[in-house]
Amino acid sequence: MSQEPATPLLDTVKTPDDLRKLAPTQLRQLADELRVEMISAVGQTGGHLGSGLGVVELTVAIHYVFNTPEDRLVWDVGHQAYPHKILTGRRDRIRTLRQAGGLSGFTKRSESEYDPFGTAHSSTSISAALGFAIANKLSGRLGKGIAVIGDGAMSAGMAYEAMNNAEAAGNRLIVILNDNDMSIAPPVGGLSAYLARLVSSGPFLGLRDIARRLSRKLPRPLHEAARKTDEFARGMAMGGTLFEELGFYYVGPIDGHNIDQLIPVLENVRDAAEGPCLIHVVTQKGKGYAPAEAAADKYHGVQKFDVITGEQVKAKAAAPAYQNVFGETLAKLADADPTICAITAAMPSGTGVDKFAKAHPDRTFDVGIAEQHAVTFAAGLAAEGMRPFCAIYSTFLQRAFDQVVHDVAIQNLPVRFAIDRAGLVGADGATHAGSFDVTYLATLPNLVVMAAADEAELVHMTYTAALHDSGPIAFRYPRGNGVGVPLPEVPERLEIGKGRIIRQGSKVALLSLGTRLAEALKAADQLDARGLSTTVADLRFAKPLDVALIRQLMTTHDVIVTVEEGSIGGLGAHVLTMASDEGLVDGGLKIRTMRLPDLFQDHDAPEKQYDEAGLNAPHIVDTVLKALRHNSAGVSEARA
Amino acid sequence: MSQEPATPLLDTVKTPDDLRKLAPTQLRQLADELRVEMISAVGQTGGHLGSGLGVVELTVAIHYVFNTPEDRLVWDVGHQAYPHKILTGRRDRIRTLRQAGGLSGFTKRSESEYDPFGTAHSSTSISAALGFAIANKLSGRLGKGIAVIGDGAMSAGMAYEAMNNAEAAGNRLIVILNDNDMSIAPPVGGLSAYLARLVSSGPFLGLRDIARRLSRKLPRPLHEAARKTDEFARGMAMGGTLFEELGFYYVGPIDGHNIDQLIPVLENVRDAAEGPCLIHVVTQKGKGYAPAEAAADKYHGVQKFDVITGEQVKAKAAAPAYQNVFGETLAKLADADPTICAITAAMPSGTGVDKFAKAHPDRTFDVGIAEQHAVTFAAGLAAEGMRPFCAIYSTFLQRAFDQVVHDVAIQNLPVRFAIDRAGLVGADGATHAGSFDVTYLATLPNLVVMAAADEAELVHMTYTAALHDSGPIAFRYPRGNGVGVPLPEVPERLEIGKGRIIRQGSKVALLSLGTRLAEALKAADQLDARGLSTTVADLRFAKPLDVALIRQLMTTHDVIVTVEEGSIGGLGAHVLTMASDEGLVDGGLKIRTMRLPDLFQDHDAPEKQYDEAGLNAPHIVDTVLKALRHNSAGVSEARA
Repeated sequence: MSQEPATPLLDTVKTPDDLRKLAPTQLRQLADELRVEMISAVGQTGGHLGSGLGVVELTVAIHYVFNTPEDRLVWDVGHQAYPHKILTGRRDRIRTLRQAGGLSGFTKRSESEYDPFGTAHSSTSISAALGFAIANKLSGRLGKGIAVIGDGAMSAGMAYEAMNNAEAAGNRLIVILNDNDMSIAPPVGGLSAYLARLVSSGPFLGLRDIARRLSRKLPRPLHEAARKTDEFARGMAMGGTLFEELGFYYVGPIDGHNIDQLIPVLENVRDAAEGPCLIHVVTQKGKGYAPAEAAADKYHGVQKFDVITGEQVKAKAAAPAYQNVFGETLAKLADADPTICAITAAMPSGTGVDKFAKAHPDRTFDVGIAEQHAVTFAAGLAAEGMRPFCAIYSTFLQRAFDQVVHDVAIQNLPVRFAIDRAGLVGADGATHAGSFDVTYLATLPNLVVMAAADEAELVHMTYTAALHDSGPIAFRYPRGNGVGVPLPEVPERLEIGKGRIIRQGSKVALLSLGTRLAEALKAADQLDARGLSTTVADLRFAKPLDVALIRQLMTTHDVIVTVEEGSIGGLGAHVLTMASDEGLVDGGLKIRTMRLPDLFQDHDAPEKQYDEAGLNAPHIVDTVLKALRHNSAGVSEARA
Repeated sequence: MSQEPATPLLDTVKTPDDLRKLAPTQLRQLADELRVEMISAVGQTGGHLGSGLGVVELTVAIHYVFNTPEDRLVWDVGHQAYPHKILTGRRDRIRTLRQAGGLSGFTKRSESEYDPFGTAHSSTSISAALGFAIANKLSGRLGKGIAVIGDGAMSAGMAYEAMNNAEAAGNRLIVILNDNDMSIAPPVGGLSAYLARLVSSGPFLGLRDIARRLSRKLPRPLHEAARKTDEFARGMAMGGTLFEELGFYYVGPIDGHNIDQLIPVLENVRDAAEGPCLIHVVTQKGKGYAPAEAAADKYHGVQKFDVITGEQVKAKAAAPAYQNVFGETLAKLADADPTICAITAAMPSGTGVDKFAKAHPDRTFDVGIAEQHAVTFAAGLAAEGMRPFCAIYSTFLQRAFDQVVHDVAIQNLPVRFAIDRAGLVGADGATHAGSFDVTYLATLPNLVVMAAADEAELVHMTYTAALHDSGPIAFRYPRGNGVGVPLPEVPERLEIGKGRIIRQGSKVALLSLGTRLAEALKAADQLDARGLSTTVADLRFAKPLDVALIRQLMTTHDVIVTVEEGSIGGLGAHVLTMASDEGLVDGGLKIRTMRLPDLFQDHDAPEKQYDEAGLNAPHIVDTVLKALRHNSAGVSEARA
């Protein structure tokens, strides 16, 4: 543990009200103390570092100028809100970030009135801020809606949809574009190039320019003249016309680390804007911490680290991360197959697509934070004979659900979905859990849905997907490292819709999908020890089900238990539906389905989350024993 | 039936190859004949008329200039593609549009090689065209990707995401913006205002201007000078900088009904563009047919009509449309409740929100084709104490699935989802069917999911949703008119999670969700007549289930059949899961779940679709009888 830094001024600031009592000349010191406090805290907890460091001054300036919490401040994604948390009454818990029972790594309504809207997925902030602005307008209250959104998040369609609707909010909506030229990876696309041109096109705006734009403080005829001059100048200098053409007053670019510049600009916007305003602030991710500034990813997300050296405490992995197994397998397959492409939505490293990109840069597409486009773009590639792999986290694929239905499934196009972060995800919590993919994919006609039980299976499934040209296919796998099984030299093509028996018994059958298989095997050992001979099957496919295998197990075993890391409507529901369709339970059969509970689980250590979910070996044993004790009249003996 | 028009020139054009043999001077006549042929056809079939009329000349020009089908032409939404179908070998079937077994009302891959990508939901075309362009680039083939997209469709985020990624396609990507200042309703938002400024800001571009923009034909130094001059001129005239800033060459605005202007512009773009190009074409929806031009909605979607008078053949409705029952009920509730708001994504009339808007314009928000924003905006309103109703078709709510999960359900915010067009939708076919909403919503923690059995129930559910402040709530109802029950004078607040017994029996229990209730009741009569005393319950709630009611029915009846208009994973799956959780089937119980089949059903008359789906009364009777005949060994007697 590093010693906590001395922060005499920050110690006097418990809330933004205290902050607003300071003199402007004190804010530089406050920002410096806030920065070292944040570095110290994240050194102890791990978490998102670079983004928070980039907005220290901006955080101070916003709370200084605006009337939070009445003005509703929404931090897009929210992983840059650690300085905000420190300033808004949560400093005493800042060293519990992302720990069990501690502060969330994102903003969260239940944590503080200063978090009016929870964030975590990108690009929601403008829509939410617009909602606050309009509600306050309708109710005659004063509050503004303020969205702070990164340049990467601006590549998502929903940010644009919200911008397109901003006019209704009038000057109650303020969008602060935090342009650090990075989301997690370097940004891509036309917007990013445009922002770079804006930043490089001229000197930062002076106060007089800002006053000219915000018009109310100028007499009317002068205002008109100023406006014309201004438009002219803008046309010449490639100014912020993209935003102005969408109906915003554009102010910027502003140096986001210069408090003396930030404060008057924010004050002007607060007091003088006549309509929705976009403030373009340029910041540096990782600012003020040398190891972060020097790192390629600017310490986006870090483990616990030594504050002096910046060295991160990395646990040695016993097995490779699933994402890398996927990326490397796909890269190898693509060596021999020129039609294989990989698509990522701003997550090259998180999805392992970076491994593919090294070998096949021309067939790698990072589309930015744009899952909708990613999927339909892949559908277009598939329609033209390519074999596209969309590598998207389970939780983010939700963004493209309609595209999966409408552009892929209905047309039966062979898009391959590599679904990472399926199931519970530990410290990232409920917003990032991949709980629903089996349910929302397996309900679709034409889809094939697989889940890998371990990293060797992931190799087989990647290969199987590559060769599956008759329609869409998805395979899911969890966050983190494999279980340590050897990786196959030669991948195996799995037969579609066929599971495998891992362990043969006679009385109890556990039907597992995905990585809960290890717990099912443990449970089987314990059941066997109690004299309950247990079969374990790895179904591999949630759709199509291995009907023959399941039928056979149901007709030869007394108790059937399905185990999956997903919510209701997935494997268990499909097995029950098939059994009911076939009348397999008509004469009595004890079937139980083990799944994620019907609640959003908070962040915690993964093992604890599985315990809470009731998906570990002891829970499986318990479920079997309870089912056996349950009598036929529908009343459990324990209860009776 | 009106007589088919004389079309001597069109009769000689079977495919675009024939078209390309014509002299440019013949194209005006061809377009005129194409227009009357289309009017004649839609007069007989009904369907989308105004959009197709607006693109007659554009359709001729595109096929004349580009090398379809090798150049991949993607019509956004596809409902304007009737002239395209006539020109691409489908004229002989054009009078089967939207009829059973006939042509689809949208583009469809299985219909023609000239439909490289099926469309129907808005705003997918640029992503798909980009996929084609990139695949051809990677494979060394010549084909371009051409997207034709309306100004309304441009308001959707996914169009923007695709634009932001266009650069990679180089000059293989051509986007034709068909600006008719209308999607279905008049457009909204900043982009629409921007396009209006472009159109009004100056004369249409001459050919010399276009050559100047497309550069390759000019020597390099001249090109640079031209570029600078051009940028300057643009800045002054508010030119197409928004698109240029996203990396497109912008050409326009062009008169989309002037073939003599269209052809050379398209040729120039085809031959001289150095990068992705956006051609801004201005058209008039309903062009060339007086009754359509005169109508407010430009005959967007029509019934069969008399070609001379334009009078549509409208069947007299016995009962009000569900959408209007919803809109009028909500308007009334809002008279007494200033917090109720209504949100629509460009469907004010289709969702009945127009009825609400008349009474409460300040609380009505048409956000454009922007479902993602609609939902998160509603979440922001709810977080600020409003009672927002998001009225969105089931199939379009798929666009906002992640926002429902992340911004609404996780935060447990009381957003109300009024889900229209739930279930099968007749002539609009698979792309518009609302098959999945119960599955994808009921899997989410915190959601309440209702389905209305008739229009009176819809009144109660609208009221129940208004008063439900503890979390999100959704209610679904079908396309079309109610069943004719009287509407309640005073709406009733339903108890959350409680169903109702409609008819008490003792041997068979039918558990219905939604409007299949009428068929369940018919089936019950037939079963009773066979001596099988039948209970019918309307569960009302898919989530939370009425566990007490279901348990009671399961313990007192021999056969349980669930009936719903939704895919696997919905009501049936939840009932089975609950029964299995409670061990209710351990001792044997015949349960069957009736649901939509695992395939995408083509367009057809609704009754036929229900027959195909197996969800009419005879199918229910049959399911019960088969279940009764099925013996306990898991082998049906019929098969044995």
